[in-house]
Amino acid sequence: MNSKIQTAVVGVTGYAGAELARLLLRHPRLQGVPPVFAGRLDDKDAARGGVPLTEIHPHLADNNGIRTLMMESFSWDLLAERGVDVLFLATPHEQSRSWVPEALARGMRVIDLSGAWRLVEPGNRAVYGFEDANPVLAAATQAKAVYGMAELHRSQIGGAQLVANPGCYATSVILPLKPLVAAGVVDLDTGIIADSKSGVSGAGKAPTAKTHYMYAADNLSAYGVFTHRHTGELLEQIGIMNEEIVFTPHLLPIPRGILSTVYVRFRTPQTRAGVMHIYRDFFADSPMVRLYDASLPQIQHSVRTSYADIGFQLSSDGKRAVIVSCLDNLLKGASSQAVQNLNLMYGWDEAEGLA
Amino acid sequence: MNSKIQTAVVGVTGYAGAELARLLLRHPRLQGVPPVFAGRLDDKDAARGGVPLTEIHPHLADNNGIRTLMMESFSWDLLAERGVDVLFLATPHEQSRSWVPEALARGMRVIDLSGAWRLVEPGNRAVYGFEDANPVLAAATQAKAVYGMAELHRSQIGGAQLVANPGCYATSVILPLKPLVAAGVVDLDTGIIADSKSGVSGAGKAPTAKTHYMYAADNLSAYGVFTHRHTGELLEQIGIMNEEIVFTPHLLPIPRGILSTVYVRFRTPQTRAGVMHIYRDFFADSPMVRLYDASLPQIQHSVRTSYADIGFQLSSDGKRAVIVSCLDNLLKGASSQAVQNLNLMYGWDEAEGLA
Amino acid sequence: MNSKIQTAVVGVTGYAGAELARLLLRHPRLQGVPPVFAGRLDDKDAARGGVPLTEIHPHLADNNGIRTLMMESFSWDLLAERGVDVLFLATPHEQSRSWVPEALARGMRVIDLSGAWRLVEPGNRAVYGFEDANPVLAAATQAKAVYGMAELHRSQIGGAQLVANPGCYATSVILPLKPLVAAGVVDLDTGIIADSKSGVSGAGKAPTAKTHYMYAADNLSAYGVFTHRHTGELLEQIGIMNEEIVFTPHLLPIPRGILSTVYVRFRTPQTRAGVMHIYRDFFADSPMVRLYDASLPQIQHSVRTSYADIGFQLSSDGKRAVIVSCLDNLLKGASSQAVQNLNLMYGWDEAEGLA
Amino acid sequence: MNSKIQTAVVGVTGYAGAELARLLLRHPRLQGVPPVFAGRLDDKDAARGGVPLTEIHPHLADNNGIRTLMMESFSWDLLAERGVDVLFLATPHEQSRSWVPEALARGMRVIDLSGAWRLVEPGNRAVYGFEDANPVLAAATQAKAVYGMAELHRSQIGGAQLVANPGCYATSVILPLKPLVAAGVVDLDTGIIADSKSGVSGAGKAPTAKTHYMYAADNLSAYGVFTHRHTGELLEQIGIMNEEIVFTPHLLPIPRGILSTVYVRFRTPQTRAGVMHIYRDFFADSPMVRLYDASLPQIQHSVRTSYADIGFQLSSDGKRAVIVSCLDNLLKGASSQAVQNLNLMYGWDEAEGLA
Repeated sequence: MNSKIQTAVVGVTGYAGAELARLLLRHPRLQGVPPVFAGRLDDKDAARGGVPLTEIHPHLADNNGIRTLMMESFSWDLLAERGVDVLFLATPHEQSRSWVPEALARGMRVIDLSGAWRLVEPGNRAVYGFEDANPVLAAATQAKAVYGMAELHRSQIGGAQLVANPGCYATSVILPLKPLVAAGVVDLDTGIIADSKSGVSGAGKAPTAKTHYMYAADNLSAYGVFTHRHTGELLEQIGIMNEEIVFTPHLLPIPRGILSTVYVRFRTPQTRAGVMHIYRDFFADSPMVRLYDASLPQIQHSVRTSYADIGFQLSSDGKRAVIVSCLDNLLKGASSQAVQNLNLMYGWDEAEGLA
Repeated sequence: MNSKIQTAVVGVTGYAGAELARLLLRHPRLQGVPPVFAGRLDDKDAARGGVPLTEIHPHLADNNGIRTLMMESFSWDLLAERGVDVLFLATPHEQSRSWVPEALARGMRVIDLSGAWRLVEPGNRAVYGFEDANPVLAAATQAKAVYGMAELHRSQIGGAQLVANPGCYATSVILPLKPLVAAGVVDLDTGIIADSKSGVSGAGKAPTAKTHYMYAADNLSAYGVFTHRHTGELLEQIGIMNEEIVFTPHLLPIPRGILSTVYVRFRTPQTRAGVMHIYRDFFADSPMVRLYDASLPQIQHSVRTSYADIGFQLSSDGKRAVIVSCLDNLLKGASSQAVQNLNLMYGWDEAEGLA
Repeated sequence: MNSKIQTAVVGVTGYAGAELARLLLRHPRLQGVPPVFAGRLDDKDAARGGVPLTEIHPHLADNNGIRTLMMESFSWDLLAERGVDVLFLATPHEQSRSWVPEALARGMRVIDLSGAWRLVEPGNRAVYGFEDANPVLAAATQAKAVYGMAELHRSQIGGAQLVANPGCYATSVILPLKPLVAAGVVDLDTGIIADSKSGVSGAGKAPTAKTHYMYAADNLSAYGVFTHRHTGELLEQIGIMNEEIVFTPHLLPIPRGILSTVYVRFRTPQTRAGVMHIYRDFFADSPMVRLYDASLPQIQHSVRTSYADIGFQLSSDGKRAVIVSCLDNLLKGASSQAVQNLNLMYGWDEAEGLA
Repeated sequence: MNSKIQTAVVGVTGYAGAELARLLLRHPRLQGVPPVFAGRLDDKDAARGGVPLTEIHPHLADNNGIRTLMMESFSWDLLAERGVDVLFLATPHEQSRSWVPEALARGMRVIDLSGAWRLVEPGNRAVYGFEDANPVLAAATQAKAVYGMAELHRSQIGGAQLVANPGCYATSVILPLKPLVAAGVVDLDTGIIADSKSGVSGAGKAPTAKTHYMYAADNLSAYGVFTHRHTGELLEQIGIMNEEIVFTPHLLPIPRGILSTVYVRFRTPQTRAGVMHIYRDFFADSPMVRLYDASLPQIQHSVRTSYADIGFQLSSDGKRAVIVSCLDNLLKGASSQAVQNLNLMYGWDEAEGLA
């Protein structure tokens, strides 16, 4: 069962990196070939090199095998020496943008968890402000990138050399909307509303004024209204125009989890059975999506799982729907989606190592 | 300055009742005439009678004067003996529905914090399932009820014998919407979305599966989708049709506070200055509304204040707005709004005792 | 690897029952023989019978196999029909007290998670107020009970017919103290202090005033001072007198986890190395205890693991120690300790299914 | 009633500074003479000067008077121009250590909220590592400092030029212990245990790894075991030796509040009435201490009040006590204790402005 695939995780010091480490260490296909772990370049822990992984993430210590593993200083030579096949980048957007061409040139397949390669339209990508040293190479690399959402691009991911792992908010909004928009039932003229709420781990591990306990606890705040950079992913992946959706993220006083409340109007009245049929059809081969029939998802049921949960309620006239989607921003919104992509890239069962 | 007005609070054992007690005890116009406090009929504490108020609400004990105050067993005779002028009912909807006619007949003015008398349209009121023993009397009483939102009905409240204090969610949605709808700028055809999030105190003091710490903590859940009973208040007070709004409440893992994110489309593009002008105009004489100009309100800044806070963001094309309103569900959403109504009923400064 | 051992869990509706279900469903030795699940007799869900387990515990649904499993109505016939070998009781103390003799008579081995059979001394057991219908049978049953803490009674558990699974607080206090007291280094005359803090799940699933979010959140309170019923376990298992320890539990505003801060004075000054040696020696064969050398345990690192974590700090004069122990009250404090006992009863690796 | 006393707060950007600002703005004796507010030197906001106070602390905006107040850049000239009588320093320890002699030389009375001047014994003060530029002046200044705990030093505070406001933990441990130790009933040989738990605001406003929401939430951790710098205050103020107490602070997942569980053994058995008598006697003239007779204090009842709450439980043999004290670390543990000192310094009612 062991695949002999050598993985590497760069950026293991962050929250998503830690979850990715945990998943890879338990993955049935990767037993006996532990990943190479390296820190982020901007992380002083990473520069030290040779730090036990359990020192950085003590909660990983419940896995006996991990106790001897080290986080190493990143270098291309390190990856070459270890014969890395697949490189996971949990690095800042700019770093991913500049490193991926090099990684591809060195023959590695890359699953990038940053926003660097998710957006095809330069206009949408402008929000990141990348300055590509070699625009031609960047464009060629971008052309190779596949948006790593199995439920939409399963077959392309299988053959991809570069997978751009989706944003956490984007995942929680695209999954409930894509089936309905693709089925043509949504009245796009009146506009979709996606009201999303995320736990604090989504804001990253760096201590800032907004991640301070005193700011986040007992609070709720909206941010990035009309400007959040995940908006481009919604437009490109759902296939809608900017004026057809309003997306508003909020910071929730919980450690992890996203709940998106999505509002749509239908072009013609729908029935519950009809809408459920559209979803069942779309997600027929998608093991990591759970459809709720009798109730609505809530964050507690999705958190610490690799699932995206979707449920909905129709207005009595069948013209409007409130759709609720939940997922764990560090798992289906980041690391477990990355592993899902790994599984597809190597032809393994899509849910392997994720149940 | 002392008014010699005798107040009474029935239902002081609940969260809103406790906040109301605190506010009345500190109210400059009520010094020297402490309120009569009584429990709810369905509350076993209330049946005991003669319980020190600080035993029920230890946090009230920071007010020295309160230490000798008792919660008494409710009876009409008690209120008569004490010469109660104004009766605050923080009682279950059904109890308020059946008691208010009696209280009015006995010459008291009533501020009712329940949903019993808020709704004019029988169809909207159906959600409460009241069975009026005397429908004629109930209808006559309903005709006297004034919806107790100073910002909309200031002058009628001044002369009212019965004030129906608004719902907490309703307050957080009506205040940001009414000025824009009244100004005729909102495109009602595309529909308004009000996505509201409330702390757990909104669910009341009774221990239930949903108020259990293990359910509420580290969680977020939507409920009452398309069916919440505050919807009728939105329709009647904003002056819109049921199909013109979707209102979705969520249970937040915080003790108190509501944040409503409200989405509107405009009939014609608006400017930030124009929208701010509409709000400033509408709330010119409203001391308990704070308009945010440079940022958006967040729950932490509104909680433990008597204010409703409103801010907004326009899309770059000026066609859509995201409006954020915040308030404390136990204060502006209940008890401080009741005191605001008291102030108006007696011709005092609307903000008295609330700063 | 499959053992063909048939397990049953009665009381699967509670928090510990749910964790136990999760662990048993994943246990390598139990694959293919899913446990029989039944509710508690006092639980209205249980009376219904035939309820999908995922309806009661939606978060269990990330295990595909579980989706068809039902919680059934308890009856002795049910257990007989299914040929149950080992019965886990996550039932109220009184229920366990009256049922266990019957279960033993029917030839089942029992792991009881309640306090019914933990205490040998009738005086210590008085706190539960049991009224045994058949005192002779009860005494005979009590004589068979083994206190189910592998680290203290590994070999007796292996042969036990009845295992009394320890209390969560007791586990967090006995484990750090027993090695030191057994080594004779603790000055018992000055008295041990065990200051324990537990998350809300320790208070059970029933909605009460103290499990209400509004009581538990943003709060800390001591309770059961000098009277908590886990005290008897401390005395019997550590081997000390009542006046030699003060144990004070506190209710923490977190969902799960216990941290106990334990204070001892030594009979003669100790060194860090010496104390660590005592612990290492005592726990040499104990895979579920993790000793912290360079830092102190904290709740976040122990929660959602099956470990008890222990660390300590000595005063500079070597005469006093502050010992910190952490564990997950639902796992090492309940269900995973029960599985650890199961493993020992069948001669499997003690840590099997717990990593 | 207006005193014409001009106050100033340096360090208003922090949590304690904000609470102090709120209390001073509402203080009956200070109406019409708003405090001068200045930032900390190490705070970039402070360097800007002329920042509206409500921009730094939006929650202060519920006080209409405050809306025009500015935080100014600190300078001695500023204080001189405004004729400051009393200077509150909510500044880092080192800054307070170097500034106070200058402030005294300029004729201001000083209430210093830092740890700079609390400790008389150089050995105890060593933990702060001060390097006094002018040791003679420092020693002379230290000699003038009065430890600002009204309950212990009421009369000296009245005449003090320099008040060293106590530490938050120290306040919560000294108040429950001093009366008993002073009465000679505590067996100091067996040692006192003070197990303290504090909310996150005690760790300050600077974003750090430990104040990150993800570290503090759903967690509990002990720190500073045997080394916390409040220990010196305990020794000097209670009048005990280092080996007679163990003090262990813990970081609680709540915004504010401290609960200390204090364990003592008595030299001879005590009765509940006797211990209560000792407390009542000691705190007879202390309006900011509340003694609990029938129950134990808990954080929720003390937080957002200016009180220290004390309750206790005796063992049945009367030889041991568990004492629980609660207070708000930002109020009685910092700013309201500072105002209490201000009141004493000017001969006002000790509780003025604090109810």
